[in-house]
Amino acid sequence: MRFTPLIILWSQVVGEAVELGSEVKKFRVGDIIGVGCIVGSCGECFSCKSNIEQYCNNRILTYNGTYKDGRPTQGGFSSAMVVHQKFVVGIPEKLAPEQAAPLLCAGVTAYSPLKQFNRSDKVVKAGILGLGGVGHLGVLIAKAMGHHVTVISSSDKKRVEALEHLGADAFLVSSNSAEMEQAVNSLDYILDTVPAVHPLHSYLSLLNVDGKLILVGVAPNPLHFDSVDLILGKKTISGSFIGSIEETQEILEFWAEKGLTSMIEVVKMDYANKAFERMERNDVRYRFVLDVAGSNMES
Amino acid sequence: MRFTPLIILWSQVVGEAVELGSEVKKFRVGDIIGVGCIVGSCGECFSCKSNIEQYCNNRILTYNGTYKDGRPTQGGFSSAMVVHQKFVVGIPEKLAPEQAAPLLCAGVTAYSPLKQFNRSDKVVKAGILGLGGVGHLGVLIAKAMGHHVTVISSSDKKRVEALEHLGADAFLVSSNSAEMEQAVNSLDYILDTVPAVHPLHSYLSLLNVDGKLILVGVAPNPLHFDSVDLILGKKTISGSFIGSIEETQEILEFWAEKGLTSMIEVVKMDYANKAFERMERNDVRYRFVLDVAGSNMES
Repeated sequence: MRFTPLIILWSQVVGEAVELGSEVKKFRVGDIIGVGCIVGSCGECFSCKSNIEQYCNNRILTYNGTYKDGRPTQGGFSSAMVVHQKFVVGIPEKLAPEQAAPLLCAGVTAYSPLKQFNRSDKVVKAGILGLGGVGHLGVLIAKAMGHHVTVISSSDKKRVEALEHLGADAFLVSSNSAEMEQAVNSLDYILDTVPAVHPLHSYLSLLNVDGKLILVGVAPNPLHFDSVDLILGKKTISGSFIGSIEETQEILEFWAEKGLTSMIEVVKMDYANKAFERMERNDVRYRFVLDVAGSNMES
Repeated sequence: MRFTPLIILWSQVVGEAVELGSEVKKFRVGDIIGVGCIVGSCGECFSCKSNIEQYCNNRILTYNGTYKDGRPTQGGFSSAMVVHQKFVVGIPEKLAPEQAAPLLCAGVTAYSPLKQFNRSDKVVKAGILGLGGVGHLGVLIAKAMGHHVTVISSSDKKRVEALEHLGADAFLVSSNSAEMEQAVNSLDYILDTVPAVHPLHSYLSLLNVDGKLILVGVAPNPLHFDSVDLILGKKTISGSFIGSIEETQEILEFWAEKGLTSMIEVVKMDYANKAFERMERNDVRYRFVLDVAGSNMES
């Protein structure tokens, strides 16, 4: 199906359907729809058949990827995109396009591993390590699931933001060893969003028996851990990569149903280069969203 | 309750009940019973209340541990032992005591993490890394659960034993890169019994999407892994420590029901020091069992 991008976030695109293939039944022309990080996969492998196509070894990334015919993918930087309906999600009516866009990658990256803890019959003790694009959405999602949420950060800088703006229940500074010691064995899971090498021992210590450390940020070099930390506590280190198309639809509906609002900065297309520069200095809370429809552009 | 050790394996003891406390209902005098790696725990913590008392921080090890009053525990090296019924399992009638003994530690160490894969509706592809005391029982248990079992070993030496004596389906030499390459993404789990530092990358590569590497051997120094190996495959590294008393009873019944036989070497008490020496050179397939009842000893 063919659609016009309205709001983009590099690889995440929200747009309006303008033309449908004859097989497309679940969307209509004029629908507001979304495309996340991938626009294709092989369709044949274990992952594709299990509807976790993000793990397909032949997935096609929406931005900076390569179509089967060798052409590069360009995300939403175009006046129109053509995508197979399999990789398209519907944006719920009550969700503003600029709120939907960050959910298509960062949001589903947090939601996919957290949904295993949804609908628990006890209060789940959650840790969110790192308060950036994925982390801040993780806090909002975990809170909306009813978890008791502790934000773990390397410094005290984001304490007010975590507790007052995002509604976290507790804030832990990882360099404060007294605070960390007090929190030992207190968490059921930690969503670890740190895309850098960091020592895992102190975070594994925070987990209760059977606790799970879930990595979603790729570190450029190997991470270390003591096997005894896992063995004597039945603990787990696992990884999770974005989320499936099905889960992307789920987080959009979850977000709309719970009435959540992420922290974003909406800018026009002519600000894109400036936004890039600011991103490189980590100067954004927490995502830039490019308003394509509202920008004056040559078409 | 009080019992006389018949068969011991350091911290694992099989004996005959000789005296019961007034609260003991599930055992009778004359019953053949077993005690595994722990003889006490706090009874109050999350682990104790969840019946996974092996993870209690105040667990009392059966051998080389310390009772609450400060006395050392001495395993089965005594003419009688007194143990709370909570830490006693019944040995099924059709199970010989010398077959039961290794199940109380090594057997349940393999069984506890493997039981999550029992009764799967598809054939589970299992890997057993390291063919020693725990590994060889892991092969037998996984086969009895109906898994397709691949033994992964550092050399070719144990190929015949794995395939012919233990009934494994495949044998993989970890130093043979062509063989390892062919097996990429083929396993649902690997039971990693190696108690030494070893590179995890090649073993994580063997796992399929959502695959689990389960560590049961404590390495003396940190292990390394690439976060991308976990993230892009939704893979997991976890740890598991012996098993619960409930699971110890389960493996004994599972073993009897499936009619399994482990590879052990039964020796008399006067061979204990020699057995120690041979263990230190790794010269045993796969466990020494000390026949206390059949030994001539001063009492």
